[in-house]
Amino acid sequence: MVRVSIIGGSGYVGGELLRILSAHPAMDVVSVTSRRFAGKPVHYAHPNLRSVYGGLRFLGGDPVKAVQDSDVVFVALPHGKSVDLVPALLEIGLRVVDLGADFRLKDPEAYRKWYGFIHPYPDLLKKAVYGLPEIHRDELKGAQLIASPGCNATAAILASAPMLREGLVSNNVILVDVKVSSSEAGREVRPSTHHPEREGSMRPYSPSGHRHSAEVVQELRLVGGREVRVSLTPHAVGGVRGVLATVYGFTSHEVSERRLLQAYVRMYGRERFIRIVHRAVGIPSPDPKYVLGSNYVDIGFAAEADVGVVKGFAAIDNLVRGAAGQAVQAVNIALGLREDAGLEYIPPHPI
Amino acid sequence: MVRVSIIGGSGYVGGELLRILSAHPAMDVVSVTSRRFAGKPVHYAHPNLRSVYGGLRFLGGDPVKAVQDSDVVFVALPHGKSVDLVPALLEIGLRVVDLGADFRLKDPEAYRKWYGFIHPYPDLLKKAVYGLPEIHRDELKGAQLIASPGCNATAAILASAPMLREGLVSNNVILVDVKVSSSEAGREVRPSTHHPEREGSMRPYSPSGHRHSAEVVQELRLVGGREVRVSLTPHAVGGVRGVLATVYGFTSHEVSERRLLQAYVRMYGRERFIRIVHRAVGIPSPDPKYVLGSNYVDIGFAAEADVGVVKGFAAIDNLVRGAAGQAVQAVNIALGLREDAGLEYIPPHPI
Amino acid sequence: MVRVSIIGGSGYVGGELLRILSAHPAMDVVSVTSRRFAGKPVHYAHPNLRSVYGGLRFLGGDPVKAVQDSDVVFVALPHGKSVDLVPALLEIGLRVVDLGADFRLKDPEAYRKWYGFIHPYPDLLKKAVYGLPEIHRDELKGAQLIASPGCNATAAILASAPMLREGLVSNNVILVDVKVSSSEAGREVRPSTHHPEREGSMRPYSPSGHRHSAEVVQELRLVGGREVRVSLTPHAVGGVRGVLATVYGFTSHEVSERRLLQAYVRMYGRERFIRIVHRAVGIPSPDPKYVLGSNYVDIGFAAEADVGVVKGFAAIDNLVRGAAGQAVQAVNIALGLREDAGLEYIPPHPI
Amino acid sequence: MVRVSIIGGSGYVGGELLRILSAHPAMDVVSVTSRRFAGKPVHYAHPNLRSVYGGLRFLGGDPVKAVQDSDVVFVALPHGKSVDLVPALLEIGLRVVDLGADFRLKDPEAYRKWYGFIHPYPDLLKKAVYGLPEIHRDELKGAQLIASPGCNATAAILASAPMLREGLVSNNVILVDVKVSSSEAGREVRPSTHHPEREGSMRPYSPSGHRHSAEVVQELRLVGGREVRVSLTPHAVGGVRGVLATVYGFTSHEVSERRLLQAYVRMYGRERFIRIVHRAVGIPSPDPKYVLGSNYVDIGFAAEADVGVVKGFAAIDNLVRGAAGQAVQAVNIALGLREDAGLEYIPPHPI
Repeated sequence: MVRVSIIGGSGYVGGELLRILSAHPAMDVVSVTSRRFAGKPVHYAHPNLRSVYGGLRFLGGDPVKAVQDSDVVFVALPHGKSVDLVPALLEIGLRVVDLGADFRLKDPEAYRKWYGFIHPYPDLLKKAVYGLPEIHRDELKGAQLIASPGCNATAAILASAPMLREGLVSNNVILVDVKVSSSEAGREVRPSTHHPEREGSMRPYSPSGHRHSAEVVQELRLVGGREVRVSLTPHAVGGVRGVLATVYGFTSHEVSERRLLQAYVRMYGRERFIRIVHRAVGIPSPDPKYVLGSNYVDIGFAAEADVGVVKGFAAIDNLVRGAAGQAVQAVNIALGLREDAGLEYIPPHPI
Repeated sequence: MVRVSIIGGSGYVGGELLRILSAHPAMDVVSVTSRRFAGKPVHYAHPNLRSVYGGLRFLGGDPVKAVQDSDVVFVALPHGKSVDLVPALLEIGLRVVDLGADFRLKDPEAYRKWYGFIHPYPDLLKKAVYGLPEIHRDELKGAQLIASPGCNATAAILASAPMLREGLVSNNVILVDVKVSSSEAGREVRPSTHHPEREGSMRPYSPSGHRHSAEVVQELRLVGGREVRVSLTPHAVGGVRGVLATVYGFTSHEVSERRLLQAYVRMYGRERFIRIVHRAVGIPSPDPKYVLGSNYVDIGFAAEADVGVVKGFAAIDNLVRGAAGQAVQAVNIALGLREDAGLEYIPPHPI
Repeated sequence: MVRVSIIGGSGYVGGELLRILSAHPAMDVVSVTSRRFAGKPVHYAHPNLRSVYGGLRFLGGDPVKAVQDSDVVFVALPHGKSVDLVPALLEIGLRVVDLGADFRLKDPEAYRKWYGFIHPYPDLLKKAVYGLPEIHRDELKGAQLIASPGCNATAAILASAPMLREGLVSNNVILVDVKVSSSEAGREVRPSTHHPEREGSMRPYSPSGHRHSAEVVQELRLVGGREVRVSLTPHAVGGVRGVLATVYGFTSHEVSERRLLQAYVRMYGRERFIRIVHRAVGIPSPDPKYVLGSNYVDIGFAAEADVGVVKGFAAIDNLVRGAAGQAVQAVNIALGLREDAGLEYIPPHPI
Repeated sequence: MVRVSIIGGSGYVGGELLRILSAHPAMDVVSVTSRRFAGKPVHYAHPNLRSVYGGLRFLGGDPVKAVQDSDVVFVALPHGKSVDLVPALLEIGLRVVDLGADFRLKDPEAYRKWYGFIHPYPDLLKKAVYGLPEIHRDELKGAQLIASPGCNATAAILASAPMLREGLVSNNVILVDVKVSSSEAGREVRPSTHHPEREGSMRPYSPSGHRHSAEVVQELRLVGGREVRVSLTPHAVGGVRGVLATVYGFTSHEVSERRLLQAYVRMYGRERFIRIVHRAVGIPSPDPKYVLGSNYVDIGFAAEADVGVVKGFAAIDNLVRGAAGQAVQAVNIALGLREDAGLEYIPPHPI
């Protein structure tokens, strides 16, 4: 059994890591840290886990020390909090999956632009593998440092990659309109996620440019083999879980839905966790409702020939495929395990 | 007092007409029809109206006969059901507001393309005034036939009009991503609006071209003075009421938010029912939550200079500003009444 | 015009007071205070009120000074915060409506038991009128100090009063099971009202005895003319607005629904804001959805003869009939105005 | 591998059976029937199951024939539809689990009273085992016909059984106030579950006596060893999944929470799927949110000594522990498998 630990285990991503890992056939959770819940059993932060983890309690104190007896450590801290921690974890020989943004971008300059700081470890940025299996599977094998993608970015990249890969977008711009549920904001309370304010709302936030764009640009450039500009506008809508990304690109009038189908099937037809959704298979559109709790990505597409627009849609569970599940998938690949180990869970319906 | 009637009064739009008209200082509801609820008091269809309308009951039978003693008749029937009724109502001298799509388009050809039928009254299409006050106020004065806009179209047009009016969109394409609550589907039950299926969902529908595009194209062409192509993708999201339209256009890099602010203020600064929303006035984004039950349109905008994208946002209550309220506003103008008569209602918060 | 002020105007109750008073035909809001939003326009706290109140800004500083030029002051502060403020307001001759719990109980001992403090103004407790119009209408006329009821208590009392008034409950116990929406928790963020935690939840809180019981006991004893014991268990359920109280009492087997109908009609048949709901009038059960935004109370009842149980149901909008609306209704009575002035609003549906 | 089939596989319970059985280590789904979806792949009814069941399609035609090659058949039909089918299935040697109400009651008279028909197979009623493992585990071993409990009944019985078992309720009446999510209404669309009508609602239904009372009375009489009367009032509240039962009983004043804790621990302390929830273990109240998708029952309790009331709370997932999961648990016992086979799923949070 692989010994795994979680740093920052009391947040929503930490909780989902604990849930998924409790059923993983080849991994054992040996320690989990939380400053706020130090000393408390894990179900104090995650009531759903009551009676699952027996006596496991959150550890406080120095996180490096807390996890030193592990083989793999998942770091689920807010952005900017893992940049100095990750090198120390690598130092003592741990395999590290960082679920924050601190090691996702290859270009150190991008940190200055999007996150406002000078990245102190540009060499580690080179070493880190962006943990999106459908694009970086080969590099993930044996990877020591995995930078797990953001949830909005995951949906945006997967929805648009096949179109860019096959050159179906005639200018170099992708517009991403993301619909986001409330759990994406994390566990920290704030006025905008207070239930009376959030329930039933539909509102754009970060309307003039969202940080996740940086990842999307980086990956789509890689997939398409040329420059691309991305405008990503997240919108808070109803629901506790799930993200839907709608991506728009311009195209010449000749791109048909059949042509799009080819592109999507070519890229994803053999992927374990991607389900292409289409009227022809009886499901007209992707909807996160059909993937909740699971690692699946449901993907659809459409062409509007009159207007010269192609569209892609990707629906994921933001905490699973957008975070904890994708991280476990990447580690499975890194360790040479079955890619879906611990991730076989079928989504319930309706929920 | 103006005597008003409603044909198709048991649907959601009919119910909101009844609610608004009950408080209108210059209008009296004299009759309301419903085939399904014929003979029943109005609160059988609208429990919220219990004790408001006393003995008023739905009339069955011939709708023209039922409303003949009115001055104004609101027709709230499904698309395609008013095309033959409206001429008969005009014939007997009534002023007609049609809340369906049957008289919204000027071009008879467009009915063939979008709605699949040959419009039998092309001359009435010419006569009908598209009931969007901010664009057709002058024509509405004295109008005998008003075609009240669709809710998605209302939001899409109002969000993008100032950008097109001032030539800020450098190609001639507008992408509209609409977020739609469940009441937009109307009262008729169907699997997709069954609560367990609909709640928490995020899914595109009509992904390859929505009928409301036709209206949007017609009006934006008028406002901008040149051809325009529109791609409109509605998405079912959470909530019972409200629509948010996010519109995207390409622009040269020099369009700043200040420039957009000018355009929006120039067009809407004196409008009774439009509230421009912006960080500078303490409200970062429009959200239908802040207008529910009212006739307000909250409008915002953003520029993303790096990418060359401008965005507009409009939040409305789909049943009020997207239907019943806008229709009353248009009639107020037609009759020379105060434009906001019966529409002064302030939205509650939170709701 | 009566000059009114609000102390604590940035909370949800304060916002609803502002909304209702903006349309009141005989009252003018002259000042509103908020420590947190001092100096800001009211729409910074209440985006729904944008463009309604023009330049009105929250006042900070000494609240007594801020409101001294008023005739009536509404105090919308957390429990325990108005106990020392109210005497000062009365001192300078203002009519005071306290929307907190500090003056609701007649018995000073009850404050020790339920709220944990010794009430410093037992004489004011005698003077205060409990602002439930259906029970205290006569005392409200001319009242200088009105203690506006809690929302759970309002629903619980109104649902059970007719049964106790006519002696239909054979022992002296009422069980109250209250279903509560999220806005009842107020504006202050906390983990239990964080959207991901609250949405879709169904959970009892204060399971061993809720403070609102004290008010309910006091009023039901008055109505029934004898001792009564009350167990009140609130449950957090879905929705942003609305409260439903289900009350249970034991009875002899002979109490029929017809007998209950008599009791409810006898007590409420002429009440402006109470609507008795029953299969026979086409609405099988009360539901807060049908009263949202309004001052109505929808009331139902049922008898289960086999088991010897009678049930009452009351549905209200917790922020209107459970707070701001009921307070305005009480002041209307106190001042000799029309009881429904400013409260004619008809609830929208569906919402 | 045990060969299992499902009759009525396109409803919500059928879908959850398919989901659970897909991961069952000792069972294989060999056929599933649906009249409406005959010939279609299972994901046409259950989009969540896409890519899980490969080519499995719904069978139409004679259900007995469709399932004849099975060892076990789950019947998930509406009430009244399995009464004649079950004998035919038993006849050909199948082990049958009926998820409807047709074989739950021991007393044939009760069918006349509660369901309005004369039960044609009173001998089968004797043979059927009520599939609530915590009460009938021994009888379930080897059972040929299992009548799986209703969801409201499951929650009501489990919440109150320990109190009755230890004689803590001083009269013989239990009041059950059930909060019910929308999926409990099943897949069939109807006006009351239309999203705009259902979302945010709080309303009692069947206020004068619900059919599930019959099961609750039967089981509590068994557990308590004496007559009991039960009043069960279901309330539709928000959420797609989950049921919370709040049960109330009268007691002498001496029953403390400690005494209740003893009773609950004594009955459930070793149960695999029951988690006793209490402030002392860091979770103040049960909430279905913490068990969704799983077979857990979270149970709490409280005493209100002043009033002489004891309360029990049970939270379940209505489609899992209230239907499909409990049925699988019962079959596991019947077949001598591990009781939690296929049911190890840990609920996600938040959802």
